[in-house]
Amino acid sequence: MAYKKLFTYIGQHISLTEEDKEQIKSSTRIKKVRKHQFVAEQGEVCRYESFVVEGCLRCYHTDEEGKEHVVQFAIEDWWIADLQSFLSQTPANFSVDALEPSVLIQFEHEDLQALYRKIPKLERFFRLIIQKAFIASQNRVVASYSQDAGKRYIEFRNRYPTIEQRVPQYMIASYLGITPEFLSKIRSRFGED
Amino acid sequence: MAYKKLFTYIGQHISLTEEDKEQIKSSTRIKKVRKHQFVAEQGEVCRYESFVVEGCLRCYHTDEEGKEHVVQFAIEDWWIADLQSFLSQTPANFSVDALEPSVLIQFEHEDLQALYRKIPKLERFFRLIIQKAFIASQNRVVASYSQDAGKRYIEFRNRYPTIEQRVPQYMIASYLGITPEFLSKIRSRFGED
Repeated sequence: MAYKKLFTYIGQHISLTEEDKEQIKSSTRIKKVRKHQFVAEQGEVCRYESFVVEGCLRCYHTDEEGKEHVVQFAIEDWWIADLQSFLSQTPANFSVDALEPSVLIQFEHEDLQALYRKIPKLERFFRLIIQKAFIASQNRVVASYSQDAGKRYIEFRNRYPTIEQRVPQYMIASYLGITPEFLSKIRSRFGED
Repeated sequence: MAYKKLFTYIGQHISLTEEDKEQIKSSTRIKKVRKHQFVAEQGEVCRYESFVVEGCLRCYHTDEEGKEHVVQFAIEDWWIADLQSFLSQTPANFSVDALEPSVLIQFEHEDLQALYRKIPKLERFFRLIIQKAFIASQNRVVASYSQDAGKRYIEFRNRYPTIEQRVPQYMIASYLGITPEFLSKIRSRFGED
């Protein structure tokens, strides 16, 4: 069931044979995490690239004053990891934890490298999804210039249409770089409160 | 000479046959631009992904008040484009212009798609370089949280070790999201002024 979701998702970008699917199954694992559980921890090596089958997670950085800054949310069909840490196998700059009980399919670094050798078209697949992630990240940089937090909120809702009901408001405020009070004001302006 | 640089760079990631190189040569073009010339313009479709053989360029967004925000610099061996615009062939959110007379090797969208079909290992190459770009962009998001512009400046110098002498100070300040006056203060703190 979990793999069906993954293969449907991958199938939107490249076509997989039954043999490819078996290879992927035997090179990955299904991981269930409970709410609040870490999937990656700042300061530790991020061991897995995770595909979200079910649930909701966030990726965030904790600064020297202990303040948390959300850089990404992930729900069904998203991928999440500290990519720098995962790729270079060095300590992570970000933590990833679950905001809901979640089901993940996880790729370990060595296994993913082996999969690229066995199924070269996965290079294309990951190129396409990393391109998307890069574009989203660049847009976030642009949005951070915008004086208008309202616009950033609209962009957030377009990017994560179903997430608003699933995530505490203070985390959305953190993602947007504003205070929870200011977010509440914006939401009432858009008739949400 | 220009292609020698490109092939050396690609060769650090994947190995190319002579036939591959001929394919790439016949599917790309060398473009010389003078200082201040646009390579991509906000509002127009970004037609090319450009490899910098020689020179220095910036990628920036102009906001509604006409203020320019630099998101990326590119020097020798870097790539530059508005990737979203290039990939989706929709109007660009960023402009790219030359800060020095520059020599580029340019890939048009259709030609790059054809190259992926002819030389599938280019998927791997572009996956690897886009991963790097994504990581840099994520680090930039984290840096923007940092209260300490000094740290952001250090990170900038690590990322672009040779660029500081080649780019006007006010553009570096724009990239760092601070005023030129504040940048000057930081630089003198680091014994640069």
